[in-house]
Amino acid sequence: MKYAVGVDLGGTKISAGLVDSTGRLLNKTKIGTEADKGPKHVIGNIIRSITAVSKDMGVKPKDIAGAGIGSPGPLDAAKGIIHFAPNLPGWKEIKLKDIVQKEFPFPVHVDNDANVAAYGENWTGAGKKVNYFLFVTLGTGVGGGLIVNNEIFHGTADSAMEIGHVTVFPDGRKCNCGNYGCLERYASATGIVITAKEFIAAGKKTLLTKTVLSSKAVHDAALKKDKVAIDILTDAGRCLGIVIANTASLLNLDMVALGGNVAEAGEFIFKPVREEIKKRVLFPANRIKVVKAKLGVDAGLIGAARLVFSNAGVA
Amino acid sequence: MKYAVGVDLGGTKISAGLVDSTGRLLNKTKIGTEADKGPKHVIGNIIRSITAVSKDMGVKPKDIAGAGIGSPGPLDAAKGIIHFAPNLPGWKEIKLKDIVQKEFPFPVHVDNDANVAAYGENWTGAGKKVNYFLFVTLGTGVGGGLIVNNEIFHGTADSAMEIGHVTVFPDGRKCNCGNYGCLERYASATGIVITAKEFIAAGKKTLLTKTVLSSKAVHDAALKKDKVAIDILTDAGRCLGIVIANTASLLNLDMVALGGNVAEAGEFIFKPVREEIKKRVLFPANRIKVVKAKLGVDAGLIGAARLVFSNAGVA
Repeated sequence: MKYAVGVDLGGTKISAGLVDSTGRLLNKTKIGTEADKGPKHVIGNIIRSITAVSKDMGVKPKDIAGAGIGSPGPLDAAKGIIHFAPNLPGWKEIKLKDIVQKEFPFPVHVDNDANVAAYGENWTGAGKKVNYFLFVTLGTGVGGGLIVNNEIFHGTADSAMEIGHVTVFPDGRKCNCGNYGCLERYASATGIVITAKEFIAAGKKTLLTKTVLSSKAVHDAALKKDKVAIDILTDAGRCLGIVIANTASLLNLDMVALGGNVAEAGEFIFKPVREEIKKRVLFPANRIKVVKAKLGVDAGLIGAARLVFSNAGVA
Repeated sequence: MKYAVGVDLGGTKISAGLVDSTGRLLNKTKIGTEADKGPKHVIGNIIRSITAVSKDMGVKPKDIAGAGIGSPGPLDAAKGIIHFAPNLPGWKEIKLKDIVQKEFPFPVHVDNDANVAAYGENWTGAGKKVNYFLFVTLGTGVGGGLIVNNEIFHGTADSAMEIGHVTVFPDGRKCNCGNYGCLERYASATGIVITAKEFIAAGKKTLLTKTVLSSKAVHDAALKKDKVAIDILTDAGRCLGIVIANTASLLNLDMVALGGNVAEAGEFIFKPVREEIKKRVLFPANRIKVVKAKLGVDAGLIGAARLVFSNAGVA
């Protein structure tokens, strides 16, 4: 029961980490997912990663309590079946848990990637020992995970915390999902670029007209005190703040940690988020604390490993 | 362990019910709250109600498993302390549970009124045996309760499900709470009257110009196929649908039951609610079922009684 292996299955890379029962990451490997070669090949890569990350450290299978895998896509967490995954061609009702399980003497667990990242941050990161903890990751899209009293809140079909597709503006921007005004269209890296384009098209004077647009470029311009860039990030933060305020009014949470690339813009995002919460949350008791996530890209690995210890009743 | 008493403490009336362990309501009393006479007097009325409703039926204290009280206002459910209650003058940090407890040999439990109504509907009403169940009551305001696997979801400070103060329109109508665009300003009886006034002020032709405005008057006009009245209810339903869709995207629930006076408008409200959910919820797995609450004003009594049985491990 000394170690667990955590795996983060991404569209381009598979990371694996050897984690001890206190949540310390002792070793890490990263290989290409090679998603284009299909599910069987990708699962082979997962199995190789699990073996490699433990062998590297001279850890024997008998000292490994199990392996946890954070996977994209809608899935059945208990059965470890991936219903589908937009970035993994050919993945349809893949029995990931059972297939990986056959290769190892220890138990294998599977959960959603945003859930395990939330679970990691709640174990050793920004949300350590926080009972009602929300994690939101702001990247190309917006994802989230909710941890209540050390347990992942799954919802009835393991589909909870689709926070990127919560409506901010009922008649807002059209989203890829078909809906209008989804948070993802405003507060993700993609959303920030859309806002930047709108501001530039409106003829606003900004350094951004001279660069390739990206959320990083907007952040860089904001650091140079470009007023328009600051407004763009403020807008993203406000939209995020509205949704977090609503989530806090519904769930009465202790803390939200923001992770992902967009969270790197720091106070440009965090300040408007906090302002919206203060403005919109009725009861002081519901005024959720807003912090930056701490574990970065390791959150998923650490949280996936935690699945092993929590299932064994240790973490 | 045969019976429990459930109490519904309201601003104008106190109802008490004798409930058996299957959730059947056997007897019911109702007296005035007499809130203007202060907390001590009101608590006396609660105690008298508990005694009366069991005595009526010849039930002896030894056959009563306990009493549960659904109370308005922010409160500490475990300690049974009411922090304050807008409709009960003088209620500030009132130790309701301890005071009532002294009068009876059986345990006394306290929880929020919307929570216990949700708990009742989840026991014997519309949400019977539903694992992820949301209850929304549409009256003067909008309240809600969330039941997950037979337990009330309280949040970190017993302040979860402030669904009436979730923002629908970020720059919308000013709410009494200080925020803008709260659901309560659109989908409550109050909100429906505001919408009606706006429509009338805009010069729309409607039967409503000839009546005293109320949500019931709007419903009556809608039944007479008044186009404007139908549009007013559709608007309320849409706003409610947006918030329920968002809640479903966040929490992945099985069912929402709508109660309260406004829900009496039936399909005029339910249809737009369902349409918004279909439009806004990305994954079919998150498409929550929408039904009408079944227990009416008894939901609170029955749910308050359930607190007794669930604390005893029976329901």
